[in-house]
Amino acid sequence: MPLDATVATRIRFADTGLVPVVVQDHASRAVLMMAWADADALAHTLATRRATYFSRSRNAQWVKGETSGHVQHVREVRLDCDGDTVLYVVDQTGPACHTGTTTCFDGDLILGDDHA
Amino acid sequence: MPLDATVATRIRFADTGLVPVVVQDHASRAVLMMAWADADALAHTLATRRATYFSRSRNAQWVKGETSGHVQHVREVRLDCDGDTVLYVVDQTGPACHTGTTTCFDGDLILGDDHA
Repeated sequence: MPLDATVATRIRFADTGLVPVVVQDHASRAVLMMAWADADALAHTLATRRATYFSRSRNAQWVKGETSGHVQHVREVRLDCDGDTVLYVVDQTGPACHTGTTTCFDGDLILGDDHA
Repeated sequence: MPLDATVATRIRFADTGLVPVVVQDHASRAVLMMAWADADALAHTLATRRATYFSRSRNAQWVKGETSGHVQHVREVRLDCDGDTVLYVVDQTGPACHTGTTTCFDGDLILGDDHA
């Protein structure tokens, strides 16, 4: 699936052909995960509103939740000021993380809140 | 400034020596920006709670807001489930984006909310 040309020209893909995607939950505003997309994955996301990524380890496109059922309906897609990072704002079904936690950032706190 | 060894072993830096950092506002929960950190920048962040990054274009460490005054006080640092993405949760002074917008994702909406 080709990416719309007017969108493609705005995105600065890395030399790998990928762009990092930050994923935020629409309801809770939590940062759910970070993944990567190539032009095809982004085009698939825009066309279907199912969050789609490119796996660097498997070297293949993946639709989030295709096997787990923990899909992401994409409410918004945004691009940052220098065009090299994408934000998906999603409605998350079930936990976002394959470990079963709500977000991929729940398990490992490196520095705790000094105002908590 | 060396990164604490127990932290360093948990982080999977890319071949470039960098790890992507997602930056979220503590109060609004907005995703403010995405940047990169090397071990030194992360160590500086942990030691000072001033959000510190590594600029790929300038090939140098930078402390956010050092020239603009738009500093980030780091409330929390989190690591994701596979150890290759860091989250800074910050108190942002002024706009996060060098363009003057609140976040770096305010200016370019690629796909609009279908439930708005």
